[in-house]
Amino acid sequence: MSKTIGWIGTGLMGKPMAHHLVNAGHTVHVNNRTKSKAQSLIDAGCRWFNTPQELAKSSDIIITIIGYPKDVEAVYFGENGIFSGIKPGTILVDMTTTKPSLAKSIAVEAQKHQCTFIDAPVSGGEVGAINGTLSIMMGGDKISVDKILPLFKAFGKNMVYQGEAGAGQHTKMCNQITIAGTMIGVCEALIYAKKAELDLNTMLQSISKGAAGCWTLDVLAPKVANNDFAPGFMVEHFIKDLGIALEEAENMQLSLPGLALAKQLYLAVQAMGKGREGTQALYLALERLSSR
Amino acid sequence: MSKTIGWIGTGLMGKPMAHHLVNAGHTVHVNNRTKSKAQSLIDAGCRWFNTPQELAKSSDIIITIIGYPKDVEAVYFGENGIFSGIKPGTILVDMTTTKPSLAKSIAVEAQKHQCTFIDAPVSGGEVGAINGTLSIMMGGDKISVDKILPLFKAFGKNMVYQGEAGAGQHTKMCNQITIAGTMIGVCEALIYAKKAELDLNTMLQSISKGAAGCWTLDVLAPKVANNDFAPGFMVEHFIKDLGIALEEAENMQLSLPGLALAKQLYLAVQAMGKGREGTQALYLALERLSSR
Repeated sequence: MSKTIGWIGTGLMGKPMAHHLVNAGHTVHVNNRTKSKAQSLIDAGCRWFNTPQELAKSSDIIITIIGYPKDVEAVYFGENGIFSGIKPGTILVDMTTTKPSLAKSIAVEAQKHQCTFIDAPVSGGEVGAINGTLSIMMGGDKISVDKILPLFKAFGKNMVYQGEAGAGQHTKMCNQITIAGTMIGVCEALIYAKKAELDLNTMLQSISKGAAGCWTLDVLAPKVANNDFAPGFMVEHFIKDLGIALEEAENMQLSLPGLALAKQLYLAVQAMGKGREGTQALYLALERLSSR
Repeated sequence: MSKTIGWIGTGLMGKPMAHHLVNAGHTVHVNNRTKSKAQSLIDAGCRWFNTPQELAKSSDIIITIIGYPKDVEAVYFGENGIFSGIKPGTILVDMTTTKPSLAKSIAVEAQKHQCTFIDAPVSGGEVGAINGTLSIMMGGDKISVDKILPLFKAFGKNMVYQGEAGAGQHTKMCNQITIAGTMIGVCEALIYAKKAELDLNTMLQSISKGAAGCWTLDVLAPKVANNDFAPGFMVEHFIKDLGIALEEAENMQLSLPGLALAKQLYLAVQAMGKGREGTQALYLALERLSSR
C-alpha cells in the first residue's frame, strides 16, 4: 500500500519540491500558512488541509519546509500543530534550515508518539528545487532515512546521512559557515581590485582557476562586477542561518571569530536596506566601510 | 639571435621553472644567494654569476623569483644589484610575490636605464612549478609581455595581462585575500563539525559539491580531517602576503576586516611554532581558541 505524504510549506523551495512528488505519482496532502501559495498543488490534485493537525491525522509521512525556527516550532508543537494530530508510526521530516537543538527536541517528542523524525535541510536554492538537484543533509532515525530515500530522489541528488537527529542541521551549518568565510574573502578581493583599478573580470580570470577557486568566485563575483545584487539566496535568510550557527557554536563553547564578523557585516548590509538582496551584497557593506 | 636569460632565485619555485627554460633550449645564466641551490642548473649547462650585477651585464632578459620584498629590493637596487650592471634594452621580470608599490618603483628605475619591467607573480605552488602549470598574473610594459609570453609557456598555463606595473602584484593580492577568507570559512566549518561530533569526511561529502564548494574544501580540508598539516604553501609565506595586502589596502584607505582577522589568526598559528606548516594549520589556532 502506497504511503500518503503530508506536505507543509509551499514557498519558493517547498512548492517545486512538492510538485516533483506529485509528478512522481505520490499522494500528497498539503497545508500552508497562506493557502493561495498552495493553489498550483491543489490544482494538481493535492488535498488541502486547514491545519497541520488535520493534515497529520491523515498522513503517513509528513514533510515540512517552512521559514524560521519559531515557525517550525509552531507547526510541530503549537495549537493545531502536527503533534496534536499525529498517528503512531508516522515518519516526520523537517527540511527547513533550523536549529540542531530544535531537531533534537522534535525527535524526542516524535518518539513519545511512537513516531520517527529526520532532519533533512537542503542546499542548492530555488534552482536546485526546480531542477530536482538539491543536496540533502540527513540526520535522525536511520531506518526511516532508508525508507524515505526513494521519495527524496524526486528532488534530491547528493543525499548523505550524517548521523543522529540534528546532524543534518549541523552539516547545513558547516555549509553556511564555509560560505560566510568564502564570501568575505571574495568580496574583499573585489573591493581591493576595484580600489587598485584592476579590471574586475580580468582579475577573476587570473584567480578563479587556482587555489582561490570557489563557487562564489565563479557564480557570484561576476554578478558583483556587473553590479547585480539580485538574490539567489537572500541576505535576511543568510543572517538567520549565521545566527543559528553562532548560537549553536556558543552552546558548544566554540569561538568562531570569522563567522561572527560575517554576521556583523551582513547586519550592516541589512541596515542599508539591502536585506532582500542576494548574499553577494556583502560587497556593498565593505564598499561603504571605505567610502567618504 | 636568441636572447640570453638571466635567472635569479633558485628556491622551491625558481629552480624547477628555470629548468623548464633550459629544457626548452634557452641559454640561461644563473645567480642565487646560496650557490649550492643552483647546482642542478649549473650541471645542466647554465653559466653561474657571482652577483646580480655581473649576471645583468651579460643578459638580455632577467627573471627574478626570490623571497621577501626586502630581498627583491636588494637584488634590484642594492650594491652589486641588477641596476648597477644592466644594459639598455633589457627586459626585467619579477615573479616574486611582492609589493605592488615596489613593482612600480622598479618599473620607474628600469625606464631610466632604457629598460622595461614586468611584474609577474605566480600561483600554483611548487607542484605547479614542477608540472609547468603555473598561473601567471602580469602587469607592466605590454610590448615586453608579448615578447616574453613564449618563454612563460615553458612553465605557465593561465597567463593573463592585468594592466600597468603593479597590476600583476595587485591581482596576486586578490588571490591571497580570497584564499584568506575561504580558509577561515573552511577551518571554522571543520572545527564546528568536530565539536558537533559529525564525521568530518561525511560532512565534506555533503557540502563540497554545492555553493560552499572550493579548492580549499577539496584539497586542504581532507588533510585537516586526516591531521595532516604538511605545507603545500607555508604559513610564514602566507603571513608575508597578507601583510603586503593589508599594507597596500591601508595605503589605498581601504578597510578589510576579514583580511585583518586572517592575519591575526595566522600570527597565532606562528606563535604556536607552526609557521612552517601548511596554511591549513589555521585550524590549529581555531582549535586552541576553544580549548581549555
